[in-house]
Amino acid sequence: MANMSTTLFTKHEQKLNDALEAIQNRGFYSAYPEIPSGKIYGETAKATGQETFENYLGSTFELNQSGTEGTIGNEISPYGMAIQTQYPKANIDVLLKSMAGACSAWRNATIETRVGCAMEIMHRLNKRSFEMAFAVMHTTGQGFMMSFQAGGPHAQDRGLEAIAYAYKAMNDCPTEATWRKQVGRDDFVTLNKIFKIVPKGIALVIGCSTFPTWNTYPGLFASLVTGNAVVVKPHPGAILPLAITVSICQEVLVESGFDANLVTLVSDTAEDPVTATLVERPEITIIDYTGGTEFGNWVEANAGNAVVYTEKAGVNSVIIDSVEQLRAVTSNLAFSLCLYSGQMCTTPQNIFIPKNGIETSDGHASFDDVAGAIVKGVDWMLSDQGRANEVLGAIQNQTTADRIDSVEGELLRDGCSIEHAMFGSARTRSIKIVKLEASQRDIFEQEMFGPLVYIIATDSTQHSIELASSIAIEQGAISCGVYSTNEEVLETAVEAMALAGVPVSCNLVGNIWVNQSAAFSDFHVSGANPSGNATLTDSAFVVGRFSVVQCRTFVPEPQKVEA
Amino acid sequence: MANMSTTLFTKHEQKLNDALEAIQNRGFYSAYPEIPSGKIYGETAKATGQETFENYLGSTFELNQSGTEGTIGNEISPYGMAIQTQYPKANIDVLLKSMAGACSAWRNATIETRVGCAMEIMHRLNKRSFEMAFAVMHTTGQGFMMSFQAGGPHAQDRGLEAIAYAYKAMNDCPTEATWRKQVGRDDFVTLNKIFKIVPKGIALVIGCSTFPTWNTYPGLFASLVTGNAVVVKPHPGAILPLAITVSICQEVLVESGFDANLVTLVSDTAEDPVTATLVERPEITIIDYTGGTEFGNWVEANAGNAVVYTEKAGVNSVIIDSVEQLRAVTSNLAFSLCLYSGQMCTTPQNIFIPKNGIETSDGHASFDDVAGAIVKGVDWMLSDQGRANEVLGAIQNQTTADRIDSVEGELLRDGCSIEHAMFGSARTRSIKIVKLEASQRDIFEQEMFGPLVYIIATDSTQHSIELASSIAIEQGAISCGVYSTNEEVLETAVEAMALAGVPVSCNLVGNIWVNQSAAFSDFHVSGANPSGNATLTDSAFVVGRFSVVQCRTFVPEPQKVEA
Repeated sequence: MANMSTTLFTKHEQKLNDALEAIQNRGFYSAYPEIPSGKIYGETAKATGQETFENYLGSTFELNQSGTEGTIGNEISPYGMAIQTQYPKANIDVLLKSMAGACSAWRNATIETRVGCAMEIMHRLNKRSFEMAFAVMHTTGQGFMMSFQAGGPHAQDRGLEAIAYAYKAMNDCPTEATWRKQVGRDDFVTLNKIFKIVPKGIALVIGCSTFPTWNTYPGLFASLVTGNAVVVKPHPGAILPLAITVSICQEVLVESGFDANLVTLVSDTAEDPVTATLVERPEITIIDYTGGTEFGNWVEANAGNAVVYTEKAGVNSVIIDSVEQLRAVTSNLAFSLCLYSGQMCTTPQNIFIPKNGIETSDGHASFDDVAGAIVKGVDWMLSDQGRANEVLGAIQNQTTADRIDSVEGELLRDGCSIEHAMFGSARTRSIKIVKLEASQRDIFEQEMFGPLVYIIATDSTQHSIELASSIAIEQGAISCGVYSTNEEVLETAVEAMALAGVPVSCNLVGNIWVNQSAAFSDFHVSGANPSGNATLTDSAFVVGRFSVVQCRTFVPEPQKVEA
Repeated sequence: MANMSTTLFTKHEQKLNDALEAIQNRGFYSAYPEIPSGKIYGETAKATGQETFENYLGSTFELNQSGTEGTIGNEISPYGMAIQTQYPKANIDVLLKSMAGACSAWRNATIETRVGCAMEIMHRLNKRSFEMAFAVMHTTGQGFMMSFQAGGPHAQDRGLEAIAYAYKAMNDCPTEATWRKQVGRDDFVTLNKIFKIVPKGIALVIGCSTFPTWNTYPGLFASLVTGNAVVVKPHPGAILPLAITVSICQEVLVESGFDANLVTLVSDTAEDPVTATLVERPEITIIDYTGGTEFGNWVEANAGNAVVYTEKAGVNSVIIDSVEQLRAVTSNLAFSLCLYSGQMCTTPQNIFIPKNGIETSDGHASFDDVAGAIVKGVDWMLSDQGRANEVLGAIQNQTTADRIDSVEGELLRDGCSIEHAMFGSARTRSIKIVKLEASQRDIFEQEMFGPLVYIIATDSTQHSIELASSIAIEQGAISCGVYSTNEEVLETAVEAMALAGVPVSCNLVGNIWVNQSAAFSDFHVSGANPSGNATLTDSAFVVGRFSVVQCRTFVPEPQKVEA
């Protein structure tokens, strides 16, 4: 068994080393190909993935874990079809006890053994990226391409990034040291010291409905490789992607001689939720949470002595001060606004434009010119049904659709549903765009998750910056786009938003968007405003998952020989 | 001013590099000499230090900070004399506002500038170690030698260790990167990325009465060099050492062109405490706490969104299984028990010995033999008045004396007060030793801070280990001594205590004691049991004090030239 584990580490060592180099430089790196191509993944990979996915529908998903009492599950695809896969229903008392029992061997395994297992899991997840894409698509409502990329290789990259940080953090402390102190002219005291990595115990990862894998893998793998067992608690609407993930984890763990109960799935339904119960269990010592702000705040306050890492929600802004080519900017923004119907935590909600307009290299553009160009950009993006369906996807949750439907005001663009070419009963909405005045802060300072954009007329760019940064400080924010041809304005905006804990993207045009966050390079969520207390991924995200406990042993001095 | 700051970094760079190497290896290192010798500190250093200390008595301690409204202070030396130094009484609203105003320049200074300032502060603290020794001695009740070492160079070493970890953590992320991704056959997207260190804001360091500098410097300097302002809140009984510290901080900051309000002192009295008010202020974003468990738990629960690092209390054990030379062991233990009248957070409280006795290289020793040898060791240690006074010092707090006085039971050694040769009205107690049975767990599982030792008869060493580790898990523990000549027993004990988050010291004899914790090598408090959530010092202790916030800027591709 030990040999098997070492083999896994050796098998994946080059990829680990590449990842370690990438987190040190934070330039471009990706370990898992993002192109859903048969040339890369195998010519039959897509068909096999789809078939595997379809076989899950209406069937029972078996997992290799203790304490199962019946099944549970009630997923419905945002594209309209019932998923109705049944998952093990956990007796939490029995499950946690089994997990505690599984910890000892895992804790005592070497760092290389644990990392080798985790990287083998990731490797197998990668091979099943098409299957995962369908699972993510039909639980989140993302378009297929996005489901493949964000649910598969991009999520795997973020997981590997966390593994790399955890590996680095565990190796930061030596495993042993000799402490030798001179205490007299010829007298020394010598201690041999051993430094042991002691994991916290059992971790809980609470997934979200929109990015079930991308937001879950960092916490799951960071906790696992640092020696903890992990309960994966998916959102009741997006269980399947994490059931597949847990299944692969269990498979690799068992093959490596460990107990499958080291990674378990606890599923529930919206009607009968169990997350709060898990959060309050004293056995849970680490919690990773992605989801809404209200419940996230509850988790932070009710986690007892558990270490808690949260990504909640925020109110994201775009500040437009001046541009070179207006069309290049509004085209870029249009895609950012449309992608996955605005259901990304990084999607802009508020676009601030000075009421007197902006300068462009083609001359002055009035507020209405700029707002109109954004609307036109969105119109064009959604003018082709195939493109619209693929970019918008579907609305994950009826609550989101209802929320946006209820918004009234000065509509620059309507947000009614649009037909899906492949799925007639898909829950869809177009992008609703509302014009507001800066005085209507009580409206635009509220997070309105979903396909809604406010375009807000401000007194000046300085006013825009003040609004964007103060809202970020109060409500949180995860992204900010700034457009200016003036270096000083850029600096002022970046400084203000950095202080508000918001990563800024400046002057994005072309094939790069404000809502993208690239593993190994972009820090996702700063941890420095109410949108979350953690970052994907930095050292702080991993070091709280284990302790170093030392042992020092007296070493007698050799007897002095009289000369 | 910038030049001055760079100069400070250069001046201390070698020491920083040595410290960085030390934290990587965690062998023996000390930056500040622990010998209170005139040859090292200057022949007049002790006299000057004493004179400076005496000048503080009854006078007003001036500090260079805003919001002062009158004075406050009511310290009385445990050696009997009134200190009655008056410190600035802070208007907290005004003070915190001034501190917030001071943050900008400090935050925007380079890492090297901040580290240079911190190391210059440490350098000047070191030069004033004699003055500090008298201040620590007459607030804590420590003997002079311990006051010098723990209050001076050892505290400075721990501070430097925190500076080194913070410096390393801030430099772990690159300041900039180029992200270049291929998005088509000949198409690339390039982003320039900048990663900014954004400090959390205003930190609060809550000092304790027994080690006002040693336990305060790590948090103070870790927060300061990561760009935060720091409120130092000393225990009302031990203000002077931290007033001197803050004064030196302000002196160096002002000389370097910064606002003195970056490091401030908020003093109070036992009758009119302000700590809770500070903890609950929303401006406070980081809290370091050392002190009792009850208030520490309150701080953890009431700190809002502040990051909290605590060292609370624990119940420390010694497990005696078998020894080579009994006398070498009991002499070593005797000093550990006597040092500073058991008022160290690392002092053993419970000594577990199998009721059937232990094996030694001189044959079997009964329980009573071993217990008797410990008592005899303590008796010898305290048999010379000068030695007794120096080792025991005085009792910091009347509550501690009362607590120990109230203990009844099967006394193996009485704990009444002993005369002090130099200070007739010193508050002293000898070491009280009580014999207990293992069945009396309800007594010995309670922390009894002060000069009280329980010697407990157990069924076996395994029983001793179970008691020590389960009490550590429930009540916390900061140290554990194990004596065994059997490798297997040592391993079992170390494994059990490590899981309980307790650093173990094995077979200490001679000039090294279980209650010592050496900077740069020993991790003090594991963070893995109720005695605290943090360690002095590791990466986890520093990374929560700042965030990294990124800015990415689109870089247009050069125009393609048609061939």
